[in-house]
Amino acid sequence: MAQMVRVQNFTVSGDGYGSGEGQSLDRPFGHADPGALFAWAGATAHWPTRTDPGGTYGLDDYCTRDFTNNIGAEIMGRNKFGPQRGPWENHDWQGWWGDEPPFHTPVFVLTHHVRPSFTLGDTTFQFLDASPEDALARAFEAAGGKDVRIGGGVATVREFLDADLVDAMHVAVSPVEIGRGERLWTSPDDLVDRFHLERIPSPSGVVHHFFWRR
Amino acid sequence: MAQMVRVQNFTVSGDGYGSGEGQSLDRPFGHADPGALFAWAGATAHWPTRTDPGGTYGLDDYCTRDFTNNIGAEIMGRNKFGPQRGPWENHDWQGWWGDEPPFHTPVFVLTHHVRPSFTLGDTTFQFLDASPEDALARAFEAAGGKDVRIGGGVATVREFLDADLVDAMHVAVSPVEIGRGERLWTSPDDLVDRFHLERIPSPSGVVHHFFWRR
Repeated sequence: MAQMVRVQNFTVSGDGYGSGEGQSLDRPFGHADPGALFAWAGATAHWPTRTDPGGTYGLDDYCTRDFTNNIGAEIMGRNKFGPQRGPWENHDWQGWWGDEPPFHTPVFVLTHHVRPSFTLGDTTFQFLDASPEDALARAFEAAGGKDVRIGGGVATVREFLDADLVDAMHVAVSPVEIGRGERLWTSPDDLVDRFHLERIPSPSGVVHHFFWRR
Repeated sequence: MAQMVRVQNFTVSGDGYGSGEGQSLDRPFGHADPGALFAWAGATAHWPTRTDPGGTYGLDDYCTRDFTNNIGAEIMGRNKFGPQRGPWENHDWQGWWGDEPPFHTPVFVLTHHVRPSFTLGDTTFQFLDASPEDALARAFEAAGGKDVRIGGGVATVREFLDADLVDAMHVAVSPVEIGRGERLWTSPDDLVDRFHLERIPSPSGVVHHFFWRR
């Protein structure tokens, strides 16, 4: 099976926002509450950061357990990596994820301000000032035949959608409103000219949106 | 995460039958039509035996792509392995799956009539005359820390359910009637005293039933 470009478990509000306004060190999602946005995922057995052995094994868990399945690299935007803007003052910041980031693959961070690569656990962060096409070529090579995840945030997903580089995309729409911030879409129907779309409501309250290329 | 015992993509008719009457070499599912029963799975991108590069990437595909995910061994009954009954006349029969069976792990076949192990592709078939508990101990050891799939048929799934050895079970209920044969249940509600149950209708017409231990 050919290498694919996939978006997974990308979560937006009912009004289409993936993040609120005012990202900071204390508030990675700005004024939005990530606990509410990601409640569906946090309840599953396979959510990477859950701290107890329980959790659900239903529909939502099929999504979270697929996160690492046949993924060989991730591409993320700088605002997913951290709240800093412009040139780096230093290289102390190593992301939000502690000593064992949940990626377990090479991760390519798109930024106009590159810095040296580093490794945490079995995740390697590399910084690229590149077009989506060039970043993807690098990621495909690093993925060793597996798929590449576009990890977000909104601007990065939009950039890859606009370049028509996304093959399959899973977006979970949470039953919360954010009102302002980083908006993925006004409606998922904006994408149905290019993608098949299945909408599957979950008992948790989210509606899973599964897109794949026509 | 502890090793689990999982049933995956097990497909039954609306009236609860996993197979019809009269299994034979030409009719592995007896009088039932496997094409109708498994139409939901055959349409997905990750159905192991599909022959063209297309296929869907929606809800049904999340189920078929999970088939090999973190599975280290399978246990199946003799009637899934073949249509023969009683002592083996010879050992020519090597299953329905050709030179590349879709399991890619050790497979333990439960039978009162053991025969020598053999290997096809990266699947090894071993024959055990053992209780569910003892077979599971062997399979856990062979699985190298991964989960064990109970592959069916109906009698084998029932045997492991009756011994309370199943941790999570996915059953797809197809919109067909079979009427007689091997019946998994009269109703999925028979199991809700021991399992959580999510029923998720798919656009393909099947209703996915996700069970996990309470």
